[in-house]
Amino acid sequence: MSNQNNKKALVIVTDGSEEMETVISVDVLRRAQIDVTVAGIALQNGGYAKCSRGVMIVPDQSLSNISNFDVYDVIVIPGGLAGAKTISSDPEVQKLLASAHQTGKFVAAICAGTIAIKSANINKGGKITSHPIVKADLENEYNYQEDRVVVDNKVITSRGPGTAFLFALTIVEQLLGKEKRNEISPPMILASTL
Amino acid sequence: MSNQNNKKALVIVTDGSEEMETVISVDVLRRAQIDVTVAGIALQNGGYAKCSRGVMIVPDQSLSNISNFDVYDVIVIPGGLAGAKTISSDPEVQKLLASAHQTGKFVAAICAGTIAIKSANINKGGKITSHPIVKADLENEYNYQEDRVVVDNKVITSRGPGTAFLFALTIVEQLLGKEKRNEISPPMILASTL
Repeated sequence: MSNQNNKKALVIVTDGSEEMETVISVDVLRRAQIDVTVAGIALQNGGYAKCSRGVMIVPDQSLSNISNFDVYDVIVIPGGLAGAKTISSDPEVQKLLASAHQTGKFVAAICAGTIAIKSANINKGGKITSHPIVKADLENEYNYQEDRVVVDNKVITSRGPGTAFLFALTIVEQLLGKEKRNEISPPMILASTL
Repeated sequence: MSNQNNKKALVIVTDGSEEMETVISVDVLRRAQIDVTVAGIALQNGGYAKCSRGVMIVPDQSLSNISNFDVYDVIVIPGGLAGAKTISSDPEVQKLLASAHQTGKFVAAICAGTIAIKSANINKGGKITSHPIVKADLENEYNYQEDRVVVDNKVITSRGPGTAFLFALTIVEQLLGKEKRNEISPPMILASTL
């Protein structure tokens, strides 16, 4: 794209990932000229992720083909309970998320994807939110919030498909500032409250 | 799915379709147990639609392989300007939309996808909305509205990615009633205003 800002995002997708949370994250970040890579893991059908409601998404590449993760400013984990379980239990992803957090990068997770924050041992005791379905998995080890999006120590968490625009715009604002968020919002015709 | 309600939807996708509008429509309708077919047309890469922000979606089948369109209760056209141009200028789609409208089925279009309503010669003079980017193409032949979703004579139109949840929930409500809409909304953690 012509208007690159040198920010890079990695969105991890697998079978059972929530397709709205995945696609809203990718699309909104790309509208902000963030260079987004959709990386697949553990795909049963090889070429695409079969998402939670059957939408088939072809990743840009396989996570296992990426050798240098230092270039990414944010790692994004979508929800979808089955997908979140696969992603959060993957040792490669756990290592990647822990390393991103330790080196001051953003880690962002929405819905059930938030369990990957816990399995990577990130920001324990810090503020977090999630879909209510995984609240019980998180509330003992985190300061659990019910806000629609939570930012704490470069960990961005959110609740579900209906908060995915707010989640993605918060990532944009954290990486590029409020001005970029305000620039890309009007063409999407968003509601006054997200 | 166990809870089928016998309603069927056809969502048409092509290169340049807006991926959020496509996926939110498909996902929300499937949450309502509507049997959704994602049908591709004119795909340059064969196996998938390369959407407006680069997300690659594999359709369930090619539109040209579908022989009986009478089974669909609603035809859904997503936006994305390039995709909407391809879809709206396709003679097969024009015939399909006109026939669906004439036989009392719903036709639903969002964002720039609304130009397909005009090219199919449907409900001229009736109420319509769209993304502002195609307002000038529609306002001379329709009663143009700026509401976030408009339902008129079984034609459902809406404005952009940020109104896509409202658009999809309106389709659900029109096909299955307010109760089904209210049943599927809370787990998505939608904002109080859409």
